[in-house]
Amino acid sequence: MKSSDSQFTTTRVEAFSDGVLAIAITLLVLEIRVPHLESPVDVPATLSALLALSPKLAGFLLSFLFIAVFWVNHHRFFGLIRRVDAGLLWLNNLLLFLLCFIPFPTAFMGDYPNNPVTIGLFALVLVLAGLAFNGMWRHALTHRLYEEHVAPEMVQGALRRGLVGPAAYAAAGLLALAWPPAAWVIFLLVPLYYALPSGRRTN
Amino acid sequence: MKSSDSQFTTTRVEAFSDGVLAIAITLLVLEIRVPHLESPVDVPATLSALLALSPKLAGFLLSFLFIAVFWVNHHRFFGLIRRVDAGLLWLNNLLLFLLCFIPFPTAFMGDYPNNPVTIGLFALVLVLAGLAFNGMWRHALTHRLYEEHVAPEMVQGALRRGLVGPAAYAAAGLLALAWPPAAWVIFLLVPLYYALPSGRRTN
Amino acid sequence: MKSSDSQFTTTRVEAFSDGVLAIAITLLVLEIRVPHLESPVDVPATLSALLALSPKLAGFLLSFLFIAVFWVNHHRFFGLIRRVDAGLLWLNNLLLFLLCFIPFPTAFMGDYPNNPVTIGLFALVLVLAGLAFNGMWRHALTHRLYEEHVAPEMVQGALRRGLVGPAAYAAAGLLALAWPPAAWVIFLLVPLYYALPSGRRTN
Amino acid sequence: MKSSDSQFTTTRVEAFSDGVLAIAITLLVLEIRVPHLESPVDVPATLSALLALSPKLAGFLLSFLFIAVFWVNHHRFFGLIRRVDAGLLWLNNLLLFLLCFIPFPTAFMGDYPNNPVTIGLFALVLVLAGLAFNGMWRHALTHRLYEEHVAPEMVQGALRRGLVGPAAYAAAGLLALAWPPAAWVIFLLVPLYYALPSGRRTN
Repeated sequence: MKSSDSQFTTTRVEAFSDGVLAIAITLLVLEIRVPHLESPVDVPATLSALLALSPKLAGFLLSFLFIAVFWVNHHRFFGLIRRVDAGLLWLNNLLLFLLCFIPFPTAFMGDYPNNPVTIGLFALVLVLAGLAFNGMWRHALTHRLYEEHVAPEMVQGALRRGLVGPAAYAAAGLLALAWPPAAWVIFLLVPLYYALPSGRRTN
Repeated sequence: MKSSDSQFTTTRVEAFSDGVLAIAITLLVLEIRVPHLESPVDVPATLSALLALSPKLAGFLLSFLFIAVFWVNHHRFFGLIRRVDAGLLWLNNLLLFLLCFIPFPTAFMGDYPNNPVTIGLFALVLVLAGLAFNGMWRHALTHRLYEEHVAPEMVQGALRRGLVGPAAYAAAGLLALAWPPAAWVIFLLVPLYYALPSGRRTN
Repeated sequence: MKSSDSQFTTTRVEAFSDGVLAIAITLLVLEIRVPHLESPVDVPATLSALLALSPKLAGFLLSFLFIAVFWVNHHRFFGLIRRVDAGLLWLNNLLLFLLCFIPFPTAFMGDYPNNPVTIGLFALVLVLAGLAFNGMWRHALTHRLYEEHVAPEMVQGALRRGLVGPAAYAAAGLLALAWPPAAWVIFLLVPLYYALPSGRRTN
Repeated sequence: MKSSDSQFTTTRVEAFSDGVLAIAITLLVLEIRVPHLESPVDVPATLSALLALSPKLAGFLLSFLFIAVFWVNHHRFFGLIRRVDAGLLWLNNLLLFLLCFIPFPTAFMGDYPNNPVTIGLFALVLVLAGLAFNGMWRHALTHRLYEEHVAPEMVQGALRRGLVGPAAYAAAGLLALAWPPAAWVIFLLVPLYYALPSGRRTN
């Protein structure tokens, strides 16, 4: 557990990242505020208040999925890494910065679910997070940080797959200008895309 | 600590789950807002303001108990597991999603403690969490993820016991339509049911 | 790291407790709300707004100290423990419940710093937390959970010292009826009492 | 993992500190509130609402950077430490107290970005955190807590470098009286100064 020199162990970077991801994923719920009811036991009014919250709830689900998928893939990545250098450390911090920020665009988009700006901001943060993670895969390749058994083709495959998300999110941001619901569908589908194949590989 | 391949270790899944549970259980308190007092040192008025908070405080206690019991049983489960496959990983993420969400229905029910909808939403989340956990026990059985020494009868027993909670919570949700306090009593009793026997076994 | 049977390891209970304590200690700051300033750059007005926050800031400090001292002594305790049985587990959960709850009485007392009820509630939670911790020391003694090298006299000493806090906090709660500032002074002094001697021993 | 006596291991102090830092860094986002929009889909109005949030967003970035740099250097420090005595433990708790508090001055400064008092408070907390960390380096030197291979010259270098931050932050606080934007620039530059060289060394 204790590093014998001042170098960063993957273990500690993973543990800190896990902590940040666990907290970010859990804080999302705080952005869903209890609605005010005029009558405290009126069933139809309570149901419509809940229904009015559905964009907030959907945003919670989307961000949860997004961060959960990141957690899974982040773990896979560090399972392939031999050591962490300063560049990788700060790329990881950049990624954590973006993931920590997600509760804000999630809440903003949940309050104004048909607004191209709120959707665009959410998409932008997801694009940047995807690119930061892609940068980590690339940095580890150019700085020979992978374990010996890691095949370069596998990394190339991960790099290619890692661009699908940012491209799709950028498209979602643009689509929001024309028809916002399309963006929401993309926000749901992309994490599922990443969940399934990486799931197959970790099987 | 470091996994030598890309497979998920139970250790890391447990650590992430523990983090999420620790945060969810701690965030609950944020939903209890400080009441506004007209007179800052009026003792009787402060006591009645505290009394008016009792449903919020009771909700805090119930959700704390629920998550604490889940933590204990979640740990017991992973103590029996040999390895984590993708299916188990995502069932666990589904469970974490539901447990992360709990602060919202808790707060909603605490604000409107006699409302069948708020009680029903709380009950629904607990039912789903129980079923997700049951799904984990079942998945580990059908995919042979348990340690060798784990007897199938023991898993069958856990599966049977794991249905008591969802059934009781569903009943609580229905009872709330007729007499809300009955639901609150069930919400208190079920975690005690799970706490005691699993306590005996971990003794 | 992985327990080979379903029993609770001290490691995992400690890790979960540490997580809960770390979160509770960090959430305290959320109860200090940014004051509203009529004029955004008026220096004297900003200084008086800050001064008006001083009870909130003092409450933050007191609760931080209290939880930090608990963390230190909680660690010392588990360093002496050989195994965790169900009773100890649930006493620990009771302790965590009380420590998780602290942000609420802290905020309430910070908003109404001269109110005997808010001070009394804060004192009550600290009394109960101290008694729960004392119950853990006692339970471990009667159930032979300590490491072999632990001398019963040492445990007896810890039990005696562990009653100083609850007694002092109970006195603070009563004093608040007569003169609230006295309670604040006790809230500051008790953690210092526990910090110093246990500090000497961990030196 | 389990300490065999009651002494504090660096591992546990690091883990608790990491937890607190991870939470503090993640809570920062909660201080960025969703703006209220008169018209829910008005693009120019949403963009100006976002623009009006830019001081909050900048404050989030600055505090994130500051805590991230502290995390990196905190880790480096504990990588050099052989054992933790009570003095170091409490200096570390003092540091954590200051870092936990950061979300409040960040939010205050974000709401009133040109106010010398809010900037001064932010600067003050950063000065104190820097001095507390410097105190840890010094304490470990005078109490021989470093690993044997650690050269005193290296510690002296770290102590000198550790004064740059507090001096710069103090200057920023003073500059805020004359021209607030200068303080913001210093708040950005200092973490970069600490990030780069320590990055080189951990490379």
